[in-house]
Amino acid sequence: MINTRVLLASRPVGLPQRENWQIETLDTSRPGEGEFLGEVLYISLDPAMRGWINEGKSYIEPVGVGDVMRAGGVARIIESRHPAFKAGDHVVGMSGVQKFWLSDGQGVTKVDPALAPLQKYLGVLGMPGMTAYFGILEIGKIREGDTVLISGAAGAVGAVVGQIAKIKGCRVIGIAGGEEKCRYLTEELGFDGAIDYKSESLHPAVHRLCPKGIDVYFDNVGGETLDVALAQLRLNARVVICGAISQYNTTAPVKGPENYLSLLINRASMQGFIVFDFAAEYAKAAHEMSQWIAEGRLQAREHIVEGLETFPETLLMLFDGRNQGKLIIRV
Amino acid sequence: MINTRVLLASRPVGLPQRENWQIETLDTSRPGEGEFLGEVLYISLDPAMRGWINEGKSYIEPVGVGDVMRAGGVARIIESRHPAFKAGDHVVGMSGVQKFWLSDGQGVTKVDPALAPLQKYLGVLGMPGMTAYFGILEIGKIREGDTVLISGAAGAVGAVVGQIAKIKGCRVIGIAGGEEKCRYLTEELGFDGAIDYKSESLHPAVHRLCPKGIDVYFDNVGGETLDVALAQLRLNARVVICGAISQYNTTAPVKGPENYLSLLINRASMQGFIVFDFAAEYAKAAHEMSQWIAEGRLQAREHIVEGLETFPETLLMLFDGRNQGKLIIRV
Repeated sequence: MINTRVLLASRPVGLPQRENWQIETLDTSRPGEGEFLGEVLYISLDPAMRGWINEGKSYIEPVGVGDVMRAGGVARIIESRHPAFKAGDHVVGMSGVQKFWLSDGQGVTKVDPALAPLQKYLGVLGMPGMTAYFGILEIGKIREGDTVLISGAAGAVGAVVGQIAKIKGCRVIGIAGGEEKCRYLTEELGFDGAIDYKSESLHPAVHRLCPKGIDVYFDNVGGETLDVALAQLRLNARVVICGAISQYNTTAPVKGPENYLSLLINRASMQGFIVFDFAAEYAKAAHEMSQWIAEGRLQAREHIVEGLETFPETLLMLFDGRNQGKLIIRV
Repeated sequence: MINTRVLLASRPVGLPQRENWQIETLDTSRPGEGEFLGEVLYISLDPAMRGWINEGKSYIEPVGVGDVMRAGGVARIIESRHPAFKAGDHVVGMSGVQKFWLSDGQGVTKVDPALAPLQKYLGVLGMPGMTAYFGILEIGKIREGDTVLISGAAGAVGAVVGQIAKIKGCRVIGIAGGEEKCRYLTEELGFDGAIDYKSESLHPAVHRLCPKGIDVYFDNVGGETLDVALAQLRLNARVVICGAISQYNTTAPVKGPENYLSLLINRASMQGFIVFDFAAEYAKAAHEMSQWIAEGRLQAREHIVEGLETFPETLLMLFDGRNQGKLIIRV
């Protein structure tokens, strides 16, 4: 069997270019003792990928130049010499951007295609869903009646954050790019309001939709949006730093939040988190979210692009906001 | 009796100038029913004053143009028609920058000159001491063995923060301006290290003295120093935002912390606070700190300048760092 895989050819400066990637085909290795070979069906594309290909250690080691690009994936096992997995099993794990995945089983979880379509395990039941769940509940510490503002609200994380906040009795306002995404938030996901940052000035829009200020701001974008939110915090507000997609590809210095002293005036906090820290509680979260899905209270959409070879171009959709929901490649 | 008082004549842009103040003399009013008249002995000068004279509501109303400048003070009551106070009592409260203080007793506390020199009630046993105590214990949540970095470490708040952290078993590094202040921190207050930001490059100095990184950063200054600290946080670090003296007089936009995404990578938090929120616990804190003072484990120095009329110039010492300890005017 011939494997196709996407390697990091060089580190990008700014937005990743086609030349930063190399697509390679080669014979697939057979699994050794304690390994399995999986056929990758779906690959997850996430904003965090931009950080993984920078030089220097962040919360995990960077992807090495010449290495297969790191990615979460869903695979069907086609051959196994691992005691915990057998051919035919479906699994999720860090498969990398490739067609065939040789794994020692570390960090790999079996999933059931009868319970949910496989791509859901990369979205609402996968890392983005877990990020949303622990970010808004454990870091945001939402309480009934809170006003919650979310940036990147139509994205894979933001959409779930908002729906969980609604389930918990909050007033939820989302910021997204474009009329279609905003309609999706209010008409399909039940958000109380949506702000189209491409057509509205943010500060007055937040003021209009959060007239008493913000109790929890869940930030996926950073930049000016973070400053606008900071300026309108309520007393004891919590700012959840989940990401800063507006800053990931900039070649200028990161824009620090000028309004950070609002934290002082409002006795507020700003806290970052990494979803991996909550791994011990994933199962509990997935159970609760599956119930919400079954009850029709939590929904999610995926934006599926065909073909592994499209990876270099498809990744860019995250950064110009063209994806409508969780971005996934069907291999 | 003739009262002398310092009024805010106009709102400063940047550093307050002499013309922003007006010194006025007029007859002192006599206390009405439920009031007392105090002779102000000491007046507290604090960085927070810069915020109080800006337009627009912050955590308290700004001082109005034409009003007596807000300030904490120690006074001796010379005439009282208030049931809780009598002539001869010593009190602390928001006396304002003036010689005679007519008060209805709100927010006023009696103090005992036999227990501590009166000026201590504006420093280690007053607002700066309370700020240090609650900031490092309640917001910084220090634990034995933590590495604690403090900016403005030789100031009225910072010096107390560092000593409390030492009492609690932390490794304590202070940042201050000038060799004399740094010697004071290490030789008199028992800090484990000090960085003279006027003669050393901050980033390598912090790296050298906090080789494993920072667990708690107590920030009084903001600006570049905050960014250097953020870059060297440990996992689960806490950043306490107490002030940002480097930014108070700037006419440029506030410098936001470019390295704020370190909060994400390190699962760290940045939190602001206002000492007034802990008013219900002041007495308990003062009791504990008095014990530390009596045991010789907590010391503080005051920088006393003579004469109410010096207020406009004396205030500026806070912003160029000329004061050595808690800055106080003796009236």
